[in-house]
Amino acid sequence: MTSAESYYPDEPVKPVVKTSTIPGPESAKQIAQLDQVFDARPAYFIADYEKSIGNYIVDVDGNAYLDLYAQIASIALGYNNPALIKAAQTPEMIRALVDRPASGNFPSADLQKTIKQILKFAPKGQDHVWSGLSGADANELAFKAAFMYYRANQRGYDTDFSTEENQSVMENTAPGAPPLAVLSFKRAFHGRLFASGSTTVSKPIHKLDFPAFDWPHADYPSYKYPLDQYEQENSLEDDRCLALVEHLIKTWKTPVAALIIEPIQSEGGDNHASNYFLQKLRDITLKHKVVYIVDEVQTGVGATGKFWCHEYADIQPPVDLVTFSKKFQSAGYFFHDPKFVPNKPYRQFNTWCGEPARMIIAGAIGQEIVDKDLTAQVLRVGDYLFQKLEALQSKYPTRFQNLRGRGRGTFIAWDLPSPEERDLLLKKLKLNGCNVGGCSTNAVRLRPTLTFEEKHADIFIEALSKTVADL
Amino acid sequence: MTSAESYYPDEPVKPVVKTSTIPGPESAKQIAQLDQVFDARPAYFIADYEKSIGNYIVDVDGNAYLDLYAQIASIALGYNNPALIKAAQTPEMIRALVDRPASGNFPSADLQKTIKQILKFAPKGQDHVWSGLSGADANELAFKAAFMYYRANQRGYDTDFSTEENQSVMENTAPGAPPLAVLSFKRAFHGRLFASGSTTVSKPIHKLDFPAFDWPHADYPSYKYPLDQYEQENSLEDDRCLALVEHLIKTWKTPVAALIIEPIQSEGGDNHASNYFLQKLRDITLKHKVVYIVDEVQTGVGATGKFWCHEYADIQPPVDLVTFSKKFQSAGYFFHDPKFVPNKPYRQFNTWCGEPARMIIAGAIGQEIVDKDLTAQVLRVGDYLFQKLEALQSKYPTRFQNLRGRGRGTFIAWDLPSPEERDLLLKKLKLNGCNVGGCSTNAVRLRPTLTFEEKHADIFIEALSKTVADL
Repeated sequence: MTSAESYYPDEPVKPVVKTSTIPGPESAKQIAQLDQVFDARPAYFIADYEKSIGNYIVDVDGNAYLDLYAQIASIALGYNNPALIKAAQTPEMIRALVDRPASGNFPSADLQKTIKQILKFAPKGQDHVWSGLSGADANELAFKAAFMYYRANQRGYDTDFSTEENQSVMENTAPGAPPLAVLSFKRAFHGRLFASGSTTVSKPIHKLDFPAFDWPHADYPSYKYPLDQYEQENSLEDDRCLALVEHLIKTWKTPVAALIIEPIQSEGGDNHASNYFLQKLRDITLKHKVVYIVDEVQTGVGATGKFWCHEYADIQPPVDLVTFSKKFQSAGYFFHDPKFVPNKPYRQFNTWCGEPARMIIAGAIGQEIVDKDLTAQVLRVGDYLFQKLEALQSKYPTRFQNLRGRGRGTFIAWDLPSPEERDLLLKKLKLNGCNVGGCSTNAVRLRPTLTFEEKHADIFIEALSKTVADL
Repeated sequence: MTSAESYYPDEPVKPVVKTSTIPGPESAKQIAQLDQVFDARPAYFIADYEKSIGNYIVDVDGNAYLDLYAQIASIALGYNNPALIKAAQTPEMIRALVDRPASGNFPSADLQKTIKQILKFAPKGQDHVWSGLSGADANELAFKAAFMYYRANQRGYDTDFSTEENQSVMENTAPGAPPLAVLSFKRAFHGRLFASGSTTVSKPIHKLDFPAFDWPHADYPSYKYPLDQYEQENSLEDDRCLALVEHLIKTWKTPVAALIIEPIQSEGGDNHASNYFLQKLRDITLKHKVVYIVDEVQTGVGATGKFWCHEYADIQPPVDLVTFSKKFQSAGYFFHDPKFVPNKPYRQFNTWCGEPARMIIAGAIGQEIVDKDLTAQVLRVGDYLFQKLEALQSKYPTRFQNLRGRGRGTFIAWDLPSPEERDLLLKKLKLNGCNVGGCSTNAVRLRPTLTFEEKHADIFIEALSKTVADL
């Protein structure tokens, strides 16, 4: 694909902001109505998805924003993408929606094709998939797989459960319900259910008042930018964090069965981990028989310029489990080792075992990324955008701190001096026609769709320049 | 609706079984292929949902079974229901599928209508809804709401979090992550994630090797049947279990913030709770400021002859939270008290905040149930079926033990003398053209769609008679 016209001939040529406040009056009215039945306080505006197209999201006041947030990084191909509309109208889709199967017990004749289509895009070293419903769900299903695998390593894959295990598990006590831990990293985000929530460490508001598992959190490396000027410091930082990981595995009050990490901590501030760090974790997890889980919920499906971000590190041997959701619109985990299929059926099971309607969409998204070579486009546009941001950084160094994501497609972020300035920037960017999200407390994260082009980057940079100048 | 013809003119007139084994050869082949990429060991056969219609599920060998299991109790209206096909083809559905919104931040202009359509079917005393993705997810979101409410009652709804809370929660420790419990019942099933799994007590296989929260399980009443012959014994049983509930609340090692109960324990054996028991739990939960959650994941949406099973008990004041999924194809919880909306936004939040495509289907299902008065049909057909089963019980008393569900529509079950006989009965029933599920270790549970009629009951009873005679 050489230009967006081929995709979105009707995309606006530039943003339109008609209202002096956002949400505009019609959005504000509808938010208040919605809030009577559904907690709508986080709503920025009410979107009109009928009118939204490509890289532009339109609201009910008629404002059209260039969208660099894309439903919290979960729209891969732009709004009303023709390939997805086609997939949504197939007989397979109608059946999946109307006759939602219990895919464990009564799988559809369509399922094999759907699964194999998703597996076409699996990271290297992964050849099976299990399906969940959200990123948090995918991670928790991966934890279950990891715990079963860890215990199978101890007792033997084919060894049956003891009477004591069968009895104690019904009391939520050991040995049937063993005290095992998942190690995660400070500033991590892996979801908001109870086990995933125990591995999430980005903001207190995600976790307050909920009981948690007593699981450890290691330090995630904090690099200095630009990376090429701080190689030695950053290498020492990697080693410091690696030593801490190994120390926690060796000394934590309960055995550490699994480690989960984002290749770039996204919600937690777009913190990157080096290839060296990700590989060394493989060495440590192998040494201590800890299951290595890579959470690609936000980083996966192309936005970093590879289909899966951790492929940059070419980790050997491949990691054990890779979780996904968001831009695939479907959730679950990939795995390779057949031992991650539990020794008995019904241990990893539930009514639906995934959502076939969403799996069809996932397959169509993956195919479109490959057919249109969108990862190459993301790399090209990402480089273009990064250079423009560096120019702005030179002009406004305090407002573009720690600019990061070079070589990682359009998965780019930087820091503002304070949460207040960051929030103000995002607010004013909307008034200047660009919908952009933050992460951590003072970072801006760019998460455009994979169909974002140089012409969109130009529009964004113009709006950003104006906004920063007016801050 | 007076006959199924109006719905399903092309429904088979009776089951067809062409193969001598189930799965048949084509199913067996496809199961083996699927198993290479997706754990397919629990598959009974590969279904052909294109050919399945109404109350008949067809497999890839051309066998057509009368379906009394209906995707583990999750198909409300039969296969390829015309009202749902219509809903699946609307522009709103295409948009929901293609432009999946982050409904918390960027709700669609369609969302308000979708939510209000679902709320039309809310149980009495509930007027808000929050959306999840599965029954387990719905329960865990309800737990989160309950924990926040419980702590808000202690600290004051508008009181801000302390520094100590904000810091300790990031370490997964108290007071930010307080040691609070959810009380559930032995034999309960509330899902298979980690917190929901800690409240599930039906079978060890659901839980083995997973760490669990140390939460208490009370006894669920075990009644003697037929109920009208054992009123006094069953009333004593209610009081025994109620005393245990109160004892656990008063003495458990951590505060009990919430209680969750199924009005009929479905996976755990179709164990019924009396109206008296469900009302008394309200009294106890109010007395001890415990949040009362009713899990209607399997019992909800019409199959018991009321839209929500717990409406039979007319609990006053209404319970705090009601969770749903399965037959609504969408998941979440209803609530009334505005205090179940947390004091700050983003505490009950995630990327998608529900699945609008499934919520559209849920609204269409509910509307069809009301328009066609299907709960009345379910009661009528349920009575008809129950009487036929009583006749069989008289003939084969040991194979129809504890026949239960009178007056609860088609939500009927009975026990076999052993798991082996139960499993054999279910297997032979398939060969005689009826797809039926079990629950607990030795119960048969009937879960036909709401469009199941007397003529279907006749076919089932004939097949069942033949099967039991041959056991």
